[in-house]
Parts: sequence; C-alpha cells; structure tokens
Amino acid sequence: MEKDVRVIEVKRSIFENNDQDAARLRAELKEKKVFLLNLMSSPGAGKTTTLLALARALKGRLKMGVMEADIDSAVDAEKMLEAGVKAIQIHTGGMCHLDADMTRQGLYEFGMDGAELIVLENVGNLVCPAEFDTGAVRNMTILSVPEGDDKPLKYPLMYEKCDLLVVNKTDVMPYFDFDRQRMEQYARQRNPKIDILYISAKNGEGIDALADWIVAKANEWRA
Amino acid sequence: MEKDVRVIEVKRSIFENNDQDAARLRAELKEKKVFLLNLMSSPGAGKTTTLLALARALKGRLKMGVMEADIDSAVDAEKMLEAGVKAIQIHTGGMCHLDADMTRQGLYEFGMDGAELIVLENVGNLVCPAEFDTGAVRNMTILSVPEGDDKPLKYPLMYEKCDLLVVNKTDVMPYFDFDRQRMEQYARQRNPKIDILYISAKNGEGIDALADWIVAKANEWRA
Repeated sequence: MEKDVRVIEVKRSIFENNDQDAARLRAELKEKKVFLLNLMSSPGAGKTTTLLALARALKGRLKMGVMEADIDSAVDAEKMLEAGVKAIQIHTGGMCHLDADMTRQGLYEFGMDGAELIVLENVGNLVCPAEFDTGAVRNMTILSVPEGDDKPLKYPLMYEKCDLLVVNKTDVMPYFDFDRQRMEQYARQRNPKIDILYISAKNGEGIDALADWIVAKANEWRA
Repeated sequence: MEKDVRVIEVKRSIFENNDQDAARLRAELKEKKVFLLNLMSSPGAGKTTTLLALARALKGRLKMGVMEADIDSAVDAEKMLEAGVKAIQIHTGGMCHLDADMTRQGLYEFGMDGAELIVLENVGNLVCPAEFDTGAVRNMTILSVPEGDDKPLKYPLMYEKCDLLVVNKTDVMPYFDFDRQRMEQYARQRNPKIDILYISAKNGEGIDALADWIVAKANEWRA
C-alpha cells in the first residue's frame, strides 16, 4: 500500500520571521479561496479517525483534502486514500511541529487549485505545534476523554491558540473519570472564546455538528 | 494546596554539548548512588497515576521521590505530596522537554543526599523529550491503550531511546482496538532490546512487576 502514498519530505524553513510568512500564506489561501484547517492534538487522540468520519459527513457539502504530517510512517495517509480522500503524507525529518513554510511546501505539492477545504493534520504533540503559526485559517485541537480533564491546565498555549476544541471518544466516557464542567472551565480560563464540541469519531456522535462548524467557517472564508 | 508545592522555574541550559553534560550528571548520580529514572509519554497516558501506584508498591523496598516537569500548573506535584511522596514541581518556561542541565537544576533543589530513586516525570510529549539526554540512568515510556497500537511507527526515537515500555490502561482494553502483538512488533522494530510490561495503574494490575523491574535496575546501579 505504501507505494501509492505521495510522501513529501519537507525542509527546514529558511524564513526567520514565521509570523510574517504565515500571514503571506494566509493571503494566498484567501485569494485561492482555500480554507486551511490546522488540526492538533496529543498522539492517539483520534485525529485521523475524526477526519475519516468528517469526510463522510462533508460529502456533497465541501471538497476535503488532507495533508498528514508525521515524523515517520505513512499509515495515516494510507487510511485516507483507502477511504477515497485526497491525501499526501508529509515527513518532518524529526521535527516536532510544522511552520508556515513547511506547510507551504506541503500545499504546493498537494495542489491548491480548486481545493475547498484542506486539513493539515499536524504532528501529534500538545506543545510545539501551538508555538508556530502554520498559515492556517483556523486552528482546532482534539482532546480525547482518556487523556483526562486537566490538559488545558498543563498545556496552556494549545488552548489559547485554538478556535475549536473537540472532545473525542465520548463513547468511553463511562470508563474514565472525566469531568466535563471542570475541563470546560479550565479551557475557558485559557481562552474564553473557544468553541467546544463533543464527538465520538468511532460511533459518529456529534460529527454532523462538527461538519456544520467547519462548513460555516469555510463559507465565511471563501465568500 | 498550591502554596505547599515547591515550584522550580528552570532556566534554559547554558551548555552547548548536552550529551557531555548528561554524562557528567550521570557520573555524579553514580557517585551519590542515586538512581534517576526519566519517565516520558504522551499527555494523559497515566504517568502520575502510575507513579502513585508505584509509590505504594515500592514502600519499604526503595525510597522514591518525584520531580514533576510541566509547562504550567502544579497539579501533579500536589497529588504526589498528598500521597506522602517527596515531590517538587519543575516549570520549563514553555519548553517542550528537559535537558541535562535543567534536570540538574531540579535535582539540586530536590536534594540528592540520601535519595535512592528519583523519577523525573518529563513533559508529556512523544517527540522532543526523546531528543535530549537528561542524564537519567534509565529511560521509560508509557503508552496507554487508548492511544493505539501504531505509536512506535510514528514516534520512532521515543522507542529507540527507552529501556522499558509500559503499556498502561489495560483495564479498558476491551473498549479499544489495540493489537498487542502488532504493537510489540512495531516497538521491537525500533528497539529489539526494549522491555515491555503491561499495567493498569487504576486497578493495580502489573504494578508489582514494574516495581520489581525498577528495584532490579536501581540495585544494579547503586551496588
């Protein structure tokens, strides 16, 4: 299967000012009417499974493509391609995050013409990806129930930077001590404006509401 | 509660060669007969809960202290102190990992005289902490069942660097698609010599075997 996956080895950025470079990339996305969503989370929070569920929910509403960033392996892009979603795999060469220029390298390989929604599945990491503006239009983070309700306390920047917090794996809520109210309170301490949605990517709960959120933001951007 | 926790704000290292500095720190630990264990994992894999279970299992066998490293908050050190475990909280000032000098700053504040086992609970992150030798005698990583069996494929360095892989949250194994054989195969691809243990920090399964592993390695080091 791996032979079918296009793997892009991105190079370390040559730009000193990543914020300026990210703004340039966003202007280009605006001009091309491409909505780029940066998806971040801990390893194993369910980014790929959520994107597979989203691809089904968005069918006929918004054309979705995915850039999978990982240090190694191409398993995530393989899963996307198997599900009929346009996808490429980005290898970061050991880097713990993507910056705007690395994202641009991925986008140019992916192809932006005619694209509507491109999701950048960032490296699984709650720390470093939040420090670098990728040029995305919106940032989304997934917190899975088994990780616990205290994550916004320990990883403040991730929650400050994100427009949307998706709590995944609600199907296993009964088996974990996860206090929704406490988690929401911690998250809003970090970012009073953050939107919060609950989903189970496994059984589909809440996926339509997540699709609606993305479609609304994409329409706003692409208008 | 937070007022009782000693919080150390560690400074960015001034040493250019971290590997050399880590070797110096390890020599000092050897001389003082202190076994330093570096514990790494994704956010929410259960590092703190495992340490609380270990503290009970090691009682009367090995004196354990804990240095909790986080970007923010002191919740982990508070939990340790409540359980009667000597603990300090290290704040990394936004840094995604600890290097040898940051570890040394923590150890000096913690106090090494008479210490037997000190666990460094590193920042929750599967990428960056594996890149920096902290000076620890052994490295251990926790993979929790909900994170999935493919993590050794995606985060190769973490598994290459660790002596022990502990799979936690076996109590929820029935609710997740986690293939033990596949995970072990991936992990041994990265590191043929890695030891693998299965535990549930929540219900105590496997904790005695984990305590035995640590006692054996500590005795070897402190002999």
